[in-house]
Amino acid sequence: MDDPVLLTGAEGRVGSAILSGLESKYDWRLLDREPPADESSNDFFVADITDYDAVYEAVDGAGAIIHLAGDPRPEAPWNSVLSNNIDGTHNILQAAVDSESVEKFIFASSNHAVGNYETDDRTPDLYRPHDEFRLDGTEFPRPSNLYGVSKATGEVLGRYYHDEFDLSVANVRIGNLTEGHPPKDYERGQAMWLSYRDCAHLFDCCLQADYDYEIIYGISDNDRKYYSIDRAREVFGYDPQDNSAHFD
Amino acid sequence: MDDPVLLTGAEGRVGSAILSGLESKYDWRLLDREPPADESSNDFFVADITDYDAVYEAVDGAGAIIHLAGDPRPEAPWNSVLSNNIDGTHNILQAAVDSESVEKFIFASSNHAVGNYETDDRTPDLYRPHDEFRLDGTEFPRPSNLYGVSKATGEVLGRYYHDEFDLSVANVRIGNLTEGHPPKDYERGQAMWLSYRDCAHLFDCCLQADYDYEIIYGISDNDRKYYSIDRAREVFGYDPQDNSAHFD
Repeated sequence: MDDPVLLTGAEGRVGSAILSGLESKYDWRLLDREPPADESSNDFFVADITDYDAVYEAVDGAGAIIHLAGDPRPEAPWNSVLSNNIDGTHNILQAAVDSESVEKFIFASSNHAVGNYETDDRTPDLYRPHDEFRLDGTEFPRPSNLYGVSKATGEVLGRYYHDEFDLSVANVRIGNLTEGHPPKDYERGQAMWLSYRDCAHLFDCCLQADYDYEIIYGISDNDRKYYSIDRAREVFGYDPQDNSAHFD
Repeated sequence: MDDPVLLTGAEGRVGSAILSGLESKYDWRLLDREPPADESSNDFFVADITDYDAVYEAVDGAGAIIHLAGDPRPEAPWNSVLSNNIDGTHNILQAAVDSESVEKFIFASSNHAVGNYETDDRTPDLYRPHDEFRLDGTEFPRPSNLYGVSKATGEVLGRYYHDEFDLSVANVRIGNLTEGHPPKDYERGQAMWLSYRDCAHLFDCCLQADYDYEIIYGISDNDRKYYSIDRAREVFGYDPQDNSAHFD
């Protein structure tokens, strides 16, 4: 990807993980609602993603978009996810098509889009290494909150923009991203842990690979996993280095 | 269903078909944005479904909801489907849960939620009797327009409200409803034709049957069909009487 890569929500945690591994590899355009906390040598767009004109300005000329911006709170109220996550994602996708420059759209979906597969009769075994249940991205969403509904809707929006406008779309259902080590005393978080370096590597893969429309899970190669990473390996060449079991 | 049944979008075409077959069978509450065209002996609520308080008043005390209200135009712009179809459906579902009276939620989804399975290499064979391709409700949405995106989102919202609050949810992906006879010179419309009497019967089935969360297709038993009605038969006892081939 020689053209600039637009990273929305750049100031958030996922944005930090991506930039910590890939800052020098791409020509970045960063977008966030707030100005950058640290001085940045990258192009920086201060914009609300619900403002189409501001979004278009940031999108036009980019070759790929990593779309992280939105209300990240699992407990976010409906009005916020309706506006920031659903309407905001539509805005970015529409701008991507209108600009005619964007070829790849990489969407930060979430484990919360499928959180209600974690039924009482499956847990806590689901979070333990011996358990063989796997979600692999071919299952329907079963959101565990309205934030998860908004992420599932983003996946559907991507499907439409892929089918109609031939945009390559990768949806990454991100697990539990923490820096340094997996969450402690939290089996679920350990099962879906994503290390910073695996996160950066996975989004790098999404910028490099060829694909049509994909839904994959974004986690490290954890012994406890109940999300399959087979599809991420096969289509994107994802080769994670970390495993929450190494920190036991 | 002895408790009142709330029918939203009652003044539209699907509402007319349902009432033409079932008006005397249930204790109806009708809701529409506009006052009724004809005098009605049923309770009638003039309300915009994006107005939560007005919606709650209509929902509270109902035992079931048939939710048809929304912008019905396949070419409807994003802002309209975002508000009327996505936000409106959330409002009704939230009111259903808040009221504690509603047990069943029957959602008018649409063939447009899966319109992009009709690819160039499948059509027009897809619309002809010899073709064996079938969509059966286990496939991911592939909307052909933003209206279809909004319907797919309604299905996801229903999934969340079912999983979290134990509401029975039936999503009916309605085909091409026309009164009297199937569309002429329109193979696609003949393939997904739904007669008025089959429409009324199908929604009657949805009010009577026991189910958790279902996605079914709402079409007559057309020789040309590419939507399976097996699930509607099995779970809901749907027994359609019409077939667009009888009008050739």
